[in-house]
Amino acid sequence: MNHLTLALDTMGGDHGPHVTVPAALQALSVYANLHLILVGDRPTILTIMRQHRASESERLRILHAEQVVQMGDKPLHALRRLKHSSMRLALDLVANGQAHACVSAGNTGALMTMAKVVLKTLPGVDRPALVTALPTMTGDPVYLMDLGANASCDSQALFQFAVMGSVLAEQVAGKSNPRVALLNIGTEEIKGNDQVQQAARLLQSTPHINYTGYVEGDRIFSGEADVIVCDGFVGNVTLKTTEGIARLLMHQIAQSVKRNPLARCLSWLLKGRLKKLFLQMNPDHYNGASLLGLRHIVVKSHGNADELAFLRAVEEAMTEVQRQVPGKIEARLQSVLLEKSC
Amino acid sequence: MNHLTLALDTMGGDHGPHVTVPAALQALSVYANLHLILVGDRPTILTIMRQHRASESERLRILHAEQVVQMGDKPLHALRRLKHSSMRLALDLVANGQAHACVSAGNTGALMTMAKVVLKTLPGVDRPALVTALPTMTGDPVYLMDLGANASCDSQALFQFAVMGSVLAEQVAGKSNPRVALLNIGTEEIKGNDQVQQAARLLQSTPHINYTGYVEGDRIFSGEADVIVCDGFVGNVTLKTTEGIARLLMHQIAQSVKRNPLARCLSWLLKGRLKKLFLQMNPDHYNGASLLGLRHIVVKSHGNADELAFLRAVEEAMTEVQRQVPGKIEARLQSVLLEKSC
Repeated sequence: MNHLTLALDTMGGDHGPHVTVPAALQALSVYANLHLILVGDRPTILTIMRQHRASESERLRILHAEQVVQMGDKPLHALRRLKHSSMRLALDLVANGQAHACVSAGNTGALMTMAKVVLKTLPGVDRPALVTALPTMTGDPVYLMDLGANASCDSQALFQFAVMGSVLAEQVAGKSNPRVALLNIGTEEIKGNDQVQQAARLLQSTPHINYTGYVEGDRIFSGEADVIVCDGFVGNVTLKTTEGIARLLMHQIAQSVKRNPLARCLSWLLKGRLKKLFLQMNPDHYNGASLLGLRHIVVKSHGNADELAFLRAVEEAMTEVQRQVPGKIEARLQSVLLEKSC
Repeated sequence: MNHLTLALDTMGGDHGPHVTVPAALQALSVYANLHLILVGDRPTILTIMRQHRASESERLRILHAEQVVQMGDKPLHALRRLKHSSMRLALDLVANGQAHACVSAGNTGALMTMAKVVLKTLPGVDRPALVTALPTMTGDPVYLMDLGANASCDSQALFQFAVMGSVLAEQVAGKSNPRVALLNIGTEEIKGNDQVQQAARLLQSTPHINYTGYVEGDRIFSGEADVIVCDGFVGNVTLKTTEGIARLLMHQIAQSVKRNPLARCLSWLLKGRLKKLFLQMNPDHYNGASLLGLRHIVVKSHGNADELAFLRAVEEAMTEVQRQVPGKIEARLQSVLLEKSC
C-alpha cells in the first residue's frame, strides 16, 4: 500500500476540532505514508490549522460539512436528518473508496447506526460489535466485546463476535491462535443464561477458534484470555464499571491521605504514577474502540479524548487498514460457516 | 426481642470451622443478647472451641451434621442428596422456628436453591435476589442487586428487586425514601433492553418507590442512588469486575514501583492504606450478601471470608432480624401490589 487515507470526523467528541485537528497534524508528521481528509466546518478547521502553521496539501485535505451530529442526537434522527454531517460525510468517503477508514469521537449510537447503513455488514455478520483492548496482569491486552452496540445478543451473535475478535487479536495484537472466552457468572457448564450456554456449544464445535471456556468478571484482567465475548449490555456496564472504580479509588485515596500529613507528601510524589495507572483503566480513552463486522474500518475514539488519545485511535485505524482486518474477518467467517454447513 | 438466635453453617467457605467458629465466639463475646447454634461436624467444632477455651452453653449450642455441601456441588444435587448437610440443617433450624436467621459462607447456588425450597419466598416474590452494599464517593453505601441468583430476569423480577432493595436501604442503612435506580447502558429512555425499559415504566408509576431513573456503570459508586437494580448476570459480572480491577491495580502499582527505588520506599509506607481501600472494593468479603425475598433471613458470607468478614455477616443477619426485614418487605410489596391493582 503506497499511501493510506483516513477520513476524520473532526467535529465529534467533547472538544471537536480543537483536539482532532492538532491530533491529525501530529499523525501526519509521524507517518509519512498517511493522507488525511478532515471532515467538518471548513472555516473552523482552517483557523486551527493556521494556529499550527499548517495548510492544505495533497496529504491534508478538508471536506466541508454543514451539519454536526450532537452527543444527544438519537441514532435514527442522525441517520435520516443529518446526511450532511461531518460523521456521515466521513463514512461516505470510506463507502465510495476515497478513504480506507474513518475515525470519529462522536455520538457512538449514531456512528454505529450510520456505519451499518453506509458501509454494510460483512457476509455472515448479523450485527457489528464494538470492541476495545483492556490491560491485563501479563502486559498483553485482552479484547472485550461487545461494548454496547447490541443491548441483547443471541448465541449466533456472540459466536460471530468470537470469530471477529479472534481475527482482531491475531492481526492487531499479533497473537497466534488467540484464546477466546465467554464472560459468564461461573465457570461450570451449567452457569449463565441460554444465549451464553448455546454460544459455548457453538464455539466448542468450531476448530478454527481456540475457545477456552467461561471466564468470570474477576478474571477479565488476569491475562488468561485474549478475547472475551459478552453481550453489549454486560460489556458496556463492565467497561464503565472499571472507570467508576478507578474514580472511586482516586477519591478514596485522596480522602484517606487528607487525614495524614506524611501520607499527603508521599501520595503527592506517587500521584503521577497512580494517575497514569488509573487512566489505563479505561483504555478506550487511549486506543479507541473498533466497530467490527463492517465491510470497512471504523474506529470510535472516546468522546472525551485528548490529542494523544485521538492520535492513538488514528493509529489503531492505520493498523487495521494495513492488516486488512475486514477482509480477514470475512475469510475466517466463511471458512467457519463452510465448516459448520459440512 | 429478648434474645436473638442465629444458625451458623460452620462448614461452609474455604476455611470452614477454622474461621466460622472463632468468629462465632467473638460475636458471642460482643453481643450479650446473641445465641448461636453451630451446625457442622461436632468433633471438629469442639476441638476448635477447646482451643479457644470455649464450651457449650445455653448461648452456644452445636448441632451435628454428617454431610457438607462442597463448593463444586450442583444446587440440585445439594437439594436432593445433602439433606443432612450443615447448610441444610442450618436452614431447617430457621424454617422450624429454632433460629431467627441463617449465615453461611458455603456454595452460593446451593444455598439459594435450598433456601428457596426450605424457607419459601414471600407472597408476591417470584424469585429471591442476592444483594450487597458497595462503597460510594459520599461514604454512604449503595445496594447492588441481583448479584447472580437469577441469570435472566424479566421486568417483573427487576421491579420486585427494586421494592425489596428499597426496604433494605430504609431498614438497614437507615435511608428515608431511598433513591432506586436501574443499571443501564445509557441514561436516555430508549437505552437498554426490553426488560429494563419495562421495569422503568413499572417503577415510574409506583408512588411507593423513589425511582430516579437509569444509572450507568461509571456512576454506580457516585452515591447518586441508594439501590441499583440489574439482572443477576450483569450484577455478578459487575461485582466480580470490581474485584478484578482492584487486583490489577495492586499488581500494576507493584510492577510500577519495582522500577523506582524512591517509589518503592513510598509505596511501602502507603501499602496498608492502599490495601485497605482495595479490599473495600469487594465489600461482600466484609458485610456478606443478603438473600432477599424469602420468608426468613439468610446471609451469605464470602467463601474466602476471614474471621472479621464472617463476624460482619453475622452482624448483618442480626440487624436484619432486629429490623424484621422480611416482614417489612412483605408489607411494602402488598401495598405496592394493592395500589397497582386499584
